[in-house]
Amino acid sequence: MGAARETAGPVHAPSPDRLFDPEPSRRSAARELYAEVKDLPLVCPHGHVPPALLSDPDATLGTPADLFIIPDHYVYRMLYSRGVPMEGLGVPTRDGTPVETDHRRVWQRFCENFHLFRATPTGLWLRDELANVFGMTEKPSAGNARRLYDELEEKLSRPEFSPRALFRRFGVETLCTTDAAGDALEHHRSLREEGWGDTVRPTFRPDGVTDLAHPDWMDNIERLSETSGVGVTDYGSFARALEDRRAFFKEMGALATDHSALYPLVRRLPKNEAEEIFARALRGEATEEDAGSFTAHMLHEMARMSTEDGLVMQMHIGSFRDHDEDVHQRFGPDSGADIPVRADWTRGLGELLNDFGSNPRFRLVVFTLDEGAYARELAPLAGHYPAMLLGAPWWFYDSPLGMRRYLDAVIETAGLQNTAGFNDDTRAFASIPSRHDVWRRVTCDWLAEKLITGVIDEEDAGEMAHDFAYGLARRAYNLEGEPVRSTR
Amino acid sequence: MGAARETAGPVHAPSPDRLFDPEPSRRSAARELYAEVKDLPLVCPHGHVPPALLSDPDATLGTPADLFIIPDHYVYRMLYSRGVPMEGLGVPTRDGTPVETDHRRVWQRFCENFHLFRATPTGLWLRDELANVFGMTEKPSAGNARRLYDELEEKLSRPEFSPRALFRRFGVETLCTTDAAGDALEHHRSLREEGWGDTVRPTFRPDGVTDLAHPDWMDNIERLSETSGVGVTDYGSFARALEDRRAFFKEMGALATDHSALYPLVRRLPKNEAEEIFARALRGEATEEDAGSFTAHMLHEMARMSTEDGLVMQMHIGSFRDHDEDVHQRFGPDSGADIPVRADWTRGLGELLNDFGSNPRFRLVVFTLDEGAYARELAPLAGHYPAMLLGAPWWFYDSPLGMRRYLDAVIETAGLQNTAGFNDDTRAFASIPSRHDVWRRVTCDWLAEKLITGVIDEEDAGEMAHDFAYGLARRAYNLEGEPVRSTR
Amino acid sequence: MGAARETAGPVHAPSPDRLFDPEPSRRSAARELYAEVKDLPLVCPHGHVPPALLSDPDATLGTPADLFIIPDHYVYRMLYSRGVPMEGLGVPTRDGTPVETDHRRVWQRFCENFHLFRATPTGLWLRDELANVFGMTEKPSAGNARRLYDELEEKLSRPEFSPRALFRRFGVETLCTTDAAGDALEHHRSLREEGWGDTVRPTFRPDGVTDLAHPDWMDNIERLSETSGVGVTDYGSFARALEDRRAFFKEMGALATDHSALYPLVRRLPKNEAEEIFARALRGEATEEDAGSFTAHMLHEMARMSTEDGLVMQMHIGSFRDHDEDVHQRFGPDSGADIPVRADWTRGLGELLNDFGSNPRFRLVVFTLDEGAYARELAPLAGHYPAMLLGAPWWFYDSPLGMRRYLDAVIETAGLQNTAGFNDDTRAFASIPSRHDVWRRVTCDWLAEKLITGVIDEEDAGEMAHDFAYGLARRAYNLEGEPVRSTR
Repeated sequence: MGAARETAGPVHAPSPDRLFDPEPSRRSAARELYAEVKDLPLVCPHGHVPPALLSDPDATLGTPADLFIIPDHYVYRMLYSRGVPMEGLGVPTRDGTPVETDHRRVWQRFCENFHLFRATPTGLWLRDELANVFGMTEKPSAGNARRLYDELEEKLSRPEFSPRALFRRFGVETLCTTDAAGDALEHHRSLREEGWGDTVRPTFRPDGVTDLAHPDWMDNIERLSETSGVGVTDYGSFARALEDRRAFFKEMGALATDHSALYPLVRRLPKNEAEEIFARALRGEATEEDAGSFTAHMLHEMARMSTEDGLVMQMHIGSFRDHDEDVHQRFGPDSGADIPVRADWTRGLGELLNDFGSNPRFRLVVFTLDEGAYARELAPLAGHYPAMLLGAPWWFYDSPLGMRRYLDAVIETAGLQNTAGFNDDTRAFASIPSRHDVWRRVTCDWLAEKLITGVIDEEDAGEMAHDFAYGLARRAYNLEGEPVRSTR
Repeated sequence: MGAARETAGPVHAPSPDRLFDPEPSRRSAARELYAEVKDLPLVCPHGHVPPALLSDPDATLGTPADLFIIPDHYVYRMLYSRGVPMEGLGVPTRDGTPVETDHRRVWQRFCENFHLFRATPTGLWLRDELANVFGMTEKPSAGNARRLYDELEEKLSRPEFSPRALFRRFGVETLCTTDAAGDALEHHRSLREEGWGDTVRPTFRPDGVTDLAHPDWMDNIERLSETSGVGVTDYGSFARALEDRRAFFKEMGALATDHSALYPLVRRLPKNEAEEIFARALRGEATEEDAGSFTAHMLHEMARMSTEDGLVMQMHIGSFRDHDEDVHQRFGPDSGADIPVRADWTRGLGELLNDFGSNPRFRLVVFTLDEGAYARELAPLAGHYPAMLLGAPWWFYDSPLGMRRYLDAVIETAGLQNTAGFNDDTRAFASIPSRHDVWRRVTCDWLAEKLITGVIDEEDAGEMAHDFAYGLARRAYNLEGEPVRSTR
Repeated sequence: MGAARETAGPVHAPSPDRLFDPEPSRRSAARELYAEVKDLPLVCPHGHVPPALLSDPDATLGTPADLFIIPDHYVYRMLYSRGVPMEGLGVPTRDGTPVETDHRRVWQRFCENFHLFRATPTGLWLRDELANVFGMTEKPSAGNARRLYDELEEKLSRPEFSPRALFRRFGVETLCTTDAAGDALEHHRSLREEGWGDTVRPTFRPDGVTDLAHPDWMDNIERLSETSGVGVTDYGSFARALEDRRAFFKEMGALATDHSALYPLVRRLPKNEAEEIFARALRGEATEEDAGSFTAHMLHEMARMSTEDGLVMQMHIGSFRDHDEDVHQRFGPDSGADIPVRADWTRGLGELLNDFGSNPRFRLVVFTLDEGAYARELAPLAGHYPAMLLGAPWWFYDSPLGMRRYLDAVIETAGLQNTAGFNDDTRAFASIPSRHDVWRRVTCDWLAEKLITGVIDEEDAGEMAHDFAYGLARRAYNLEGEPVRSTR
């Protein structure tokens, strides 16, 4: 390695053929398929981008540490696991314990440990993002951290790196945010007023009021009362308030609801039981068992409401939240210690699918953290019930190998059309194109293999590539009005 | 795409190299291995072909819809999952609700939705079957459906497409059917009389009488009484009736028994407990718990009887039957909504394997729908107990990728000789050669990879390919009398 | 096959490119990476080599049957599964029932059945060992068994095939044995006196005294009392005795402790409860439930002690021991019928990781037999908690495909640095280099794929290959003092 190279840092440009198998006939097929889909608009039906980032025309992405490290638990949990304290990365504490405020130091620590992201999806996204969004192809290191920071800081201050400018540059066609049931959706309202209503849409996520064990449950109920105008005093008014909010979210452009639970368990309670549990909760007397039963019941209720208002129901199942109690206490939820557990979908969804799974007015998109259920339970279920689609590989599985295992396990049994395409599920706004690009590359490479081994023909491969990249997500979320560009 | 092509429909001929990895040295090795095994006779030790199809010399395969769609839940469940009602596909209802009787319309709906089978094993079998059995290489579509129907209808009326003619053309050496304990085996008797006795054999499947929760249990017991001539009035006479039937099945050529259960749980009951449960069942008072205990007990009894009469014991475990209660009620069992659940083989088979697993007079072949158990439990068990063999990848796993995962997970630990080869497990008679062909291609490709990466040598690869295609199934089911053709 | 070849037996030399994907660019990258690591010293932090083999300068490896068959349950369980009685393989019985004592006959049976090891890791190790350790490239068979025996017997009698000579030739840098808590470590003491103390080290494995259900528990407690000098009369003295022994093991060079359990369950008991259970055990009155609770408690205690003395804690979880009761009774434990079960790591390790998982004085290395937990639970846990590392693919997964599944499932989520490298975990001393070589080849091939598909660059690949082969194990077990040879 020559001195010149050392000064500049190793070249870190992403290969145009990355993630394509090297066997020449397969690589060539993958390239051709990819060429047809790489520039399709991005459909982002599920994610966690704060709507304020787009509703405020003066919003910026902040410092390089704000952009890449501080809000991204994918990044800081890896550094934490190798001994870098979260305080030293500027992750804000709940109790106000001071944390690193010098973002240059945060960035320095990140660059010093950049090798930890080798062969991880986060590593891929970071490299692609630096190269493709910021035009920077040097590999971060202790030596070049300061220089990279300066360059990023300068670029981030330019108007062409504002969230809105990037949004257009990324070619995002639809981006759905995730919003609490009691959210007033002010940012969404102002986005609609500016004509962004078809582009940025809210999603109704009522976990904070349906999970009786949520630490802020009482406050969330209060906010629900306020924003719905329905004073929640019992189960009946609670259900009415939810219906009211769903209608309002729909008015604000929502396409879907979203629900998180530890288990894929849906069980309708007799009305009086639901009423009693809710009354206990209002008195602060609900038990853990109550909370479990009520969550299972509310999933059934939400499905029922979906058959009425047509909002697509999304379920994200299987994360044991806040496994590390100390990290949770100091840094709050979503701080990098949510660990998956096994799931029993076959029996857990039995009642839901019997009641609504063949209802043409219902659509259910499920996401799992237990990939053992892909081929055994989820693909057979999605391969039978008309209402059910299998969502994209989620979280830890949103990675090249995670995607391959998903494709291998799911498509043969469920068929392509019983899946829901991709979503980026991210709060890291600038990483959105990289995430979609990984999916497009991996699906094209997977299809190339099927094509070269005679499982599918060219017509199949082209249409499937287009569906993976674009069509499936649009159809799953009822975005069918706009013209769909053909691949040929 | 030119006008001529559009008229004729896209060419849909299967590639001679399909399912072989494209890397040249591996593909070449796969081709050589495959050339040695592709024409070996078909051994079909487990399946659901109706024996009447072969015992009646005038039997036909019916219309194209009869052949490809109406009886095949692999096909119609996929169409159902995308919104095509089963009634519209001519699937007969239990209660006589009218269904589509115009088979041309059924066929049309199937062809319009042919894209749903892209990259699925059903799609592969359909294409191969059309091309190899019927010489038709056009891809079905809305546009050519009518023409394809005409052509198929004409061919199906010819004598060379009769079941018996196809049976000979397919090179089936042995085909075992699946028959209820109380079945009189009349078709098998007449097949034996015509000299087909070594070729088409029954299999003893007593689920209808060992599962106390079976909706037709009482009727099944009655039929068992009749055909056995042993009046079943208590547990003792029940056991004697089963022994009698086993002996009769064996006389009619049976090689094996077959047992289905939700869990791989085998537990012998004390004699008086079994007697009491059975008495309750006869009085119509058996509980769900009784049924579970009795199934677990009868699996032990069946194993014991196998050590006496030498019938190979097959267990198909893990399907939660009739998940969709409405479909079950309207269309009956085996209608496409059987969904797998997890299995605990290690503890569940403990008692069975301790009692009989090292008994040289016993052989057990197990099939799972929980592939998570392949490497963790089933391969280690089969890799220790002399009596136990691991059956072929079953149902949803009977697919190119399902087979690869099976080979990857099983062979390193269990070794090839502790597996039982392939079976097609199908009621779709004309798809039998395609199914075996997929297995032969995938195993040859898998062995080619092992050969090219120096894990095995040419002698190993050739003998293993022959065993996968032919030898393993013959040895597992004691079909060793006839000469085995050498691979070299 | 010519007559000359038949006489000599087929050539069985391992290919220099074995286990490398055949695609030329990938194979070439794999070769280059492998060239840099293949000769690195062997770090063996966990295994079952008897220390006497090295402490006694006159020790030999015995006969070919002693070396390859009789002590290796990987070998004899496969032969047993295909009907070769363990008595006929010379495996010693507990009750003195006579077994084959003619080692030539044992060897003959093994060679006759050598085909059973096709495509198994045992088959790979045996071939590599014969070729690389003994320079013998003929494939064992019925025909050449006698000749191979003669040649091996002659070689084994030479001084250059003594355990110490082979140890040097293999380039073992560190080898840790596994020793009972009450072991006096005499062999280790004499090895230290001879200057081998940094090379051969004990590991503290207290299962025999922490598992109250252990058949020899009372004897083990007695030996613990003796060697510790602390009379164990109650829970308090038990804990002191263990602390004493840990200190002694550390003095004798131990780097780690090791713990086996059926479940990954750690739960601290209130002190009085632990005392009561232990008192019951001393009176011979402990229940199965007591044993379960106590094991879970002692895992917590061992972790606590590790935070004090710095011994790395290893957990080997998920083996249902002695599944075949008859084999267990006749041949004793570790006789080839230990079968894995599922594990729930997320909840099971909750208390342990909350108490110690972020403690910089603690390090935990876990090994699983349930690979379904790799991506779902273990990689996310190791990817958060600083103290936790994921150990190498264990037992049935110590195989080319088992390793690939491990790498695919773990690295993307946990990152390389949260894994602990390789260990051979073997009692088959002469197979150690072959086992490490398989790991080095598979990891280099895996990295080559990542390199060729643009996931990592050359710098990453080179450093990762070195870490897989050498660096990770050294760092995991605090062997950092000595110079680490650079790969470039």
